[in-house]
Amino acid sequence: MTAVFGHLNPDTDAITSALVYARLLSRQGVTATAYRLGEPNNETRFVLVQAGQEVPPLLTDLPAGSEVALVDHNESAQSLPGLAELSVTHVVDHHKLGDLTTSQPATLRFEPLGCTATLLLKLHREAGLTVEPLDARLMLSAILSDTLEFRSPTTTAQDREAVAFLAPIAGIDDVTGYAMQMFAAKSDLGDTPADQLLQMDYKVFPFGADGQRWGLGVIETTNPGYVFGRQPELLEAMRREKEASGLTGVLLSVVDILNETNRTLVPSGTEAQVVQAAFGAPTADDVADLGARISRKKQVVPTLEAHFAAQG
Amino acid sequence: MTAVFGHLNPDTDAITSALVYARLLSRQGVTATAYRLGEPNNETRFVLVQAGQEVPPLLTDLPAGSEVALVDHNESAQSLPGLAELSVTHVVDHHKLGDLTTSQPATLRFEPLGCTATLLLKLHREAGLTVEPLDARLMLSAILSDTLEFRSPTTTAQDREAVAFLAPIAGIDDVTGYAMQMFAAKSDLGDTPADQLLQMDYKVFPFGADGQRWGLGVIETTNPGYVFGRQPELLEAMRREKEASGLTGVLLSVVDILNETNRTLVPSGTEAQVVQAAFGAPTADDVADLGARISRKKQVVPTLEAHFAAQG
Repeated sequence: MTAVFGHLNPDTDAITSALVYARLLSRQGVTATAYRLGEPNNETRFVLVQAGQEVPPLLTDLPAGSEVALVDHNESAQSLPGLAELSVTHVVDHHKLGDLTTSQPATLRFEPLGCTATLLLKLHREAGLTVEPLDARLMLSAILSDTLEFRSPTTTAQDREAVAFLAPIAGIDDVTGYAMQMFAAKSDLGDTPADQLLQMDYKVFPFGADGQRWGLGVIETTNPGYVFGRQPELLEAMRREKEASGLTGVLLSVVDILNETNRTLVPSGTEAQVVQAAFGAPTADDVADLGARISRKKQVVPTLEAHFAAQG
Repeated sequence: MTAVFGHLNPDTDAITSALVYARLLSRQGVTATAYRLGEPNNETRFVLVQAGQEVPPLLTDLPAGSEVALVDHNESAQSLPGLAELSVTHVVDHHKLGDLTTSQPATLRFEPLGCTATLLLKLHREAGLTVEPLDARLMLSAILSDTLEFRSPTTTAQDREAVAFLAPIAGIDDVTGYAMQMFAAKSDLGDTPADQLLQMDYKVFPFGADGQRWGLGVIETTNPGYVFGRQPELLEAMRREKEASGLTGVLLSVVDILNETNRTLVPSGTEAQVVQAAFGAPTADDVADLGARISRKKQVVPTLEAHFAAQG
């Protein structure tokens, strides 16, 4: 049995792509079960409820040697603990290749697309398999989520075509209306504790030759006012996380989906200095305006990587 | 311009897959040129002459940041020096994933098949592109070479189907007769110096937690008697290489293609001890009988990896 899962702190793509890929592998003769590595966010819950799809079970560990298929990630820091001891047989991902290795030749599929689900649709087509309405809805939702309904610079023509192809199969007539419902669900953060808000879409990245580790969180919202209303507790949560995990820096980008802007919380002078040097953005009142850099993957991380690489 | 190349000490798959993939990328709008990282062996020369295909130019280095597409390999030790400073945009490979990383999301295609060319045929089909006769001949040759005409345990049903599909396009009626000509060309080693014989199909692998590096050569031949007739000079060449490159061990497997056996040259007690422990094979007169283990990738390397991993 192959366990299929997306990254820690799962987003909609991480959870739905595990579900869709597990079903695709099963149709191709590979016994596979979808799991999640963390709590679904409110957007993902909305998507699953609307689809009539149960939340996949939580996975916390596996015996060494177990066969696993990774979706929407490949770096060990974003995966199940002990990944190096597992047997990775399949990967479907749209991120840069990190520290993944395989002990045997495996089936790896990486393309520079806006969303893993766009690649999963290609896999269906290449295999000559019809797309079931449930899978169509899940893939479409993932693409709208990852590309912020095509607003993100990570969006490709293939992502747009995939949504156009999937919408009628999924029975979704008003794609923009559906996307707005998803984003509203994501923005409904209620009384979520600040620690959880920070961790919702949060990844740790190694930077530079001296092995610095930085935690980079993102809150994509149609209601940034709510997030900035909780700025003091979020800054406190960031400082606690930095201390607890021995990180060099922590940043939390508040992305205004509708206005396509990024205002980032900066918890100390260490981060402020790097944000100034890397992005040319000053920090005022613990906030740096990163302009239209709404993609962590395509805009924030590469700029930080270039900055730290230039430090030698 | 994207430079496309296979591994150092190129075999037929490494050279022909670079040619075929460069043309495929060009047809898909990516300006690409095929290169080789070393001298073609006699089998590859035979294949290229028969196909009327010029030998691709030798590549020895590229400026940092250059875009490259790797075929038939992914580990830096088997690639162009300074790979980490290049921008890997595409990989097509059938080996396990090693130390490759990419600085940006890239197009990576790995499948556990007998040959890179089998995967290249899939890429043509997925893209809805016809296969040109020259490319068909090159892909067919690579598959016959890598699978030893389906004798190797790395052979999959897809490799067999690919050859059956390609043969009529390539205009090759007698596939077995053509394979025998290829293997005869490969076995015609003439007065090749012993150092070159060792390096013809030679890769360096890291083993174990203590960072040992081993050089593993293979000579696939229909005429093992010729190779063993040069045993003393080959053993000397292995000892020189071990010393010069600071390796822990060097092995040279002489694979009898037609009888599907592997008799391996063992230059010192260090290697003899490991071969005994890992394969249960005693060394006599500097030769260990590894039986039917004719695949370095599928049989020799995994056994050595398991042996060194068990050493802790």
